[in-house]
Amino acid sequence: MTDTDKAYAVIMAGGSGTRFWPLSRSDRPKQFLALGPDARSLLRATAERVWGLIPPERTFVVTSELLRDQVEKELPELPPAQILAEPVGRNTAPCIGWAATHVRRLAPDAVMTVLPADHHIGDTASYIETLRQGLEAATHGDYVTIGIRPTRAETGYGYIEVGSELDPGVFSARRFVEKPNRRRAEQFVASGRFLWNSGMFFFLASRILEAIEQHLPGLGEQLQRYDEAASTGDEAALVARTYGDLPAISIDHGIMEKVSPVSVVPGSFEWSDLGSWTSAWELSERDPDDNVLPEGGVSIDATGNYAWAPKGKTVALVGVADLVVVDSGDALLVIPRERAQDVREIVAALRARDTEEK
Amino acid sequence: MTDTDKAYAVIMAGGSGTRFWPLSRSDRPKQFLALGPDARSLLRATAERVWGLIPPERTFVVTSELLRDQVEKELPELPPAQILAEPVGRNTAPCIGWAATHVRRLAPDAVMTVLPADHHIGDTASYIETLRQGLEAATHGDYVTIGIRPTRAETGYGYIEVGSELDPGVFSARRFVEKPNRRRAEQFVASGRFLWNSGMFFFLASRILEAIEQHLPGLGEQLQRYDEAASTGDEAALVARTYGDLPAISIDHGIMEKVSPVSVVPGSFEWSDLGSWTSAWELSERDPDDNVLPEGGVSIDATGNYAWAPKGKTVALVGVADLVVVDSGDALLVIPRERAQDVREIVAALRARDTEEK
Repeated sequence: MTDTDKAYAVIMAGGSGTRFWPLSRSDRPKQFLALGPDARSLLRATAERVWGLIPPERTFVVTSELLRDQVEKELPELPPAQILAEPVGRNTAPCIGWAATHVRRLAPDAVMTVLPADHHIGDTASYIETLRQGLEAATHGDYVTIGIRPTRAETGYGYIEVGSELDPGVFSARRFVEKPNRRRAEQFVASGRFLWNSGMFFFLASRILEAIEQHLPGLGEQLQRYDEAASTGDEAALVARTYGDLPAISIDHGIMEKVSPVSVVPGSFEWSDLGSWTSAWELSERDPDDNVLPEGGVSIDATGNYAWAPKGKTVALVGVADLVVVDSGDALLVIPRERAQDVREIVAALRARDTEEK
Repeated sequence: MTDTDKAYAVIMAGGSGTRFWPLSRSDRPKQFLALGPDARSLLRATAERVWGLIPPERTFVVTSELLRDQVEKELPELPPAQILAEPVGRNTAPCIGWAATHVRRLAPDAVMTVLPADHHIGDTASYIETLRQGLEAATHGDYVTIGIRPTRAETGYGYIEVGSELDPGVFSARRFVEKPNRRRAEQFVASGRFLWNSGMFFFLASRILEAIEQHLPGLGEQLQRYDEAASTGDEAALVARTYGDLPAISIDHGIMEKVSPVSVVPGSFEWSDLGSWTSAWELSERDPDDNVLPEGGVSIDATGNYAWAPKGKTVALVGVADLVVVDSGDALLVIPRERAQDVREIVAALRARDTEEK
């Protein structure tokens, strides 16, 4: 068994996606919304889940300056010093590296898990067990990721090809594959050798920092300066001045595809990256007509719809099918469920217009 | 020419329809909404139109107690004593008869026009000319109505069969016909002898009261009591106590179908009774994709939709066609345009549920 007293959690909560417009906005992104089947925000649900294994005292959240106050409010259990606020987002490698410097200072031999704040996870007990296996594998020095057993030929996820079994429940990761087309996705699932790339990682804090120094030396040097500045109380000013100059690169491309050994722990829990309103509909509890309606909603001859509205508002759907209807209070979206990915077009159109008007 | 100094207008503004739910409510019915192509409420538009011929000093509005304050606010030009508030609606015959007692007291030889407050009229000059003709015909003692030249085989309206020409532009009305089925409506329109029943009437105040005494004697007696009580200042109390006991009957069935001579003045102006959201879409200015969107709205691959939302709210429609989307602030309706008549089902379902919950 892993000594989870040395385990730290790093929750990445800096995202600012537009796929849940009009509910998600730059100042209230997806991780602060309750898009899953329960009433908690995705961030809160992520934290409460991981706290089943790792306490708040050993949890860090990396977010943006804009969102720091909301994170504090959402997670009052968290020591405020453990909320790291990026002046600007630079993808996951700088974010994880920066958090690792904090973790390593507190515990030089710490093992850490890095978790996105905005995913849905269905079975907490199974998830916790998978986390435990991932931490255990990382304790030995591996770079570890969780791969989700695919339940369909999803083209919206990256895949990991699994190699031989290294330890019980831990496999070598042969390669990472970008989002495939339909035909390849079907082949992957049929082969039984591919898992969905969950974006959840485990490594020794010292180990990931060594890997960054080797493969992303510019980032490595800057992180070392942050670490030194932290000892003298100058970190905040240095970060504010220089974070924007860090390379914007993902941990997948920047590190995981270059290092070895990379291990993968297959997870069998229900999982979704909640990529669009369609996933929210899929994961929510639906009525016998396959509708998701806010409390007090009414439907007549309506099927397969997803509706969201502010508390207390009466939503009535008559004779419509497979629509997404989202009322955020200041904006209203109506779009077919199968086109939910196109929400970005709306955001782009609105931004273009706002720019024109200025 | 008619002496329009003796002409009075009576605007019927007591309706409480549900066909424009969720925008229309019992405390804010259709006549207070701006459903036509301009920004005025239908009531305000009705009053301003008729004031082109008959001034506010000779205009009465019959409404309900619930709506009296809103009428005063909407029509500040109107002497408050000329707002007659029914304790409860009893259809058009009591409403018109009661107003006629007030008109006759002010001017025993007055001719009056009775106009619904919640219709759309497109061409004011032509409308005013038709009103003038109607008043002229009524001055001679006829019961007069306006019939609209049909532009399509509408099954949602009643029809009037036209007989011989009595005076230039004034015809005898041979019969009133209830809403026909599609085949009959097509025959009516093809024959050239049928007009839409507009619900607008003209008669001498004394004449309509005589007709009520003859054909609806119970109502006639009660109206006479109101008239007498008015002279002694006791009308309000008497009305409050007895109005609910008046027979609920329309002027069409109760009087117009029984009296003679009934004349009809054909009107050629654009007219709609605004019976549903579909009519609102038809009458509104539409964009090149046939959408009606509130200011600031966005549409992508969307056609033939009607959207309404509170001022300042951004409405985005993507990939949807022929929908009615109405956001009243506290409720949201999505329904295909061709099913807009079914809005009543929603209201019934909500009322049933509210009753259950009590």
